[in-house]
Amino acid sequence: MWFRHQLTLPAFRRGFHIITRHVAVAVPELSQVKIGWLHVFIQHTSASLSINENADPDVPRDLESSFNAIAPEDFPYVHTCEGPDDMPAHVKSSLLGSSLLIPVENGHLMLGTWQGIYLCEHRNHGGQRKLVLTLQGERGDVSPLGD
Amino acid sequence: MWFRHQLTLPAFRRGFHIITRHVAVAVPELSQVKIGWLHVFIQHTSASLSINENADPDVPRDLESSFNAIAPEDFPYVHTCEGPDDMPAHVKSSLLGSSLLIPVENGHLMLGTWQGIYLCEHRNHGGQRKLVLTLQGERGDVSPLGD
Amino acid sequence: MWFRHQLTLPAFRRGFHIITRHVAVAVPELSQVKIGWLHVFIQHTSASLSINENADPDVPRDLESSFNAIAPEDFPYVHTCEGPDDMPAHVKSSLLGSSLLIPVENGHLMLGTWQGIYLCEHRNHGGQRKLVLTLQGERGDVSPLGD
Repeated sequence: MWFRHQLTLPAFRRGFHIITRHVAVAVPELSQVKIGWLHVFIQHTSASLSINENADPDVPRDLESSFNAIAPEDFPYVHTCEGPDDMPAHVKSSLLGSSLLIPVENGHLMLGTWQGIYLCEHRNHGGQRKLVLTLQGERGDVSPLGD
Repeated sequence: MWFRHQLTLPAFRRGFHIITRHVAVAVPELSQVKIGWLHVFIQHTSASLSINENADPDVPRDLESSFNAIAPEDFPYVHTCEGPDDMPAHVKSSLLGSSLLIPVENGHLMLGTWQGIYLCEHRNHGGQRKLVLTLQGERGDVSPLGD
Repeated sequence: MWFRHQLTLPAFRRGFHIITRHVAVAVPELSQVKIGWLHVFIQHTSASLSINENADPDVPRDLESSFNAIAPEDFPYVHTCEGPDDMPAHVKSSLLGSSLLIPVENGHLMLGTWQGIYLCEHRNHGGQRKLVLTLQGERGDVSPLGD
């Protein structure tokens, strides 16, 4: 059983943003899956996806400052024609990755208690971002508690 | 054909630890799969998973010191309430990733000769870690050499 | 429906190299898949895979210099017996990752306009590199525009 949805996220400001609900809501068939997984893929090279702590808003702030230090804007890049935030965005995109694969059971993402899905927006004005969501799994008796 | 297992790893000290056998033993149905893949997912945000060199014990030592340099403890983090090793652990978790997908053929993980699965424990006292293992594939005539 | 191919890439010089066509050509069944995904896995620990910008040749040059700065050769590694480029190669391999999972629809990889698949060769003389390509999906009425 395969389901595919394309999700266009609204423009987020530069930084790390939790999008777990955006993703889950965009795949209503999740509730029918007994065992499977959800693939989240971003069709861009200056924004990326990650799983990280979903509770303290200081964590995304520190992720942003940490990745700015790891891939700084003042590095001697050759590719500068798209602005000083572009090439660091490509480096961060490769560091963080373009996709996530998350196990699904009884209608739910099997994320740990503190795990959330992050959109990592590396451009100052990245605009809308397109995701491809692919759910694969087996239908089954999903408990009525499944949402 | 889907199989799912939850594996609780014992507490490992901070650092990089090969867990290829822990994982393979926890999925006995691996031996029945002719073609497929195994997904390994960690339900935490201060430990991560990676594939790297499985032979020289100096490699995990150097991975630990290298990632400590890339995400140092003395960075001006805002999120410090859980100790100086916590926020660097989150950064490393996003750098390394929360899951692996490994091809399976004739009852075996198709790892290269020098590849092993690593648990990357980024906390000083991380405790037990929970993994979700998902094997999907097709049953078939697996050679008797398959274990 | 599962298809598996092993692809041996020719030796590439150290750096970031687009291999999207190498990969697509090696999986001719791609054209038959209505919905699915393609997994690309590298069986080495001193080369890696990534998705990044496929247009400006300055981008792979800057990726190479950026990752050389993030995992420098002059770090005090213990594992030095295989040359000064070996241990940084392992660090980069864990930073970038060993596999990619790319959605497939109507006979095509669903890459964004600017996305290409990169082989990231981290050794000075890495030689040939072996990839395991796994295509899983459902056959269906693929439009005649599908190649």
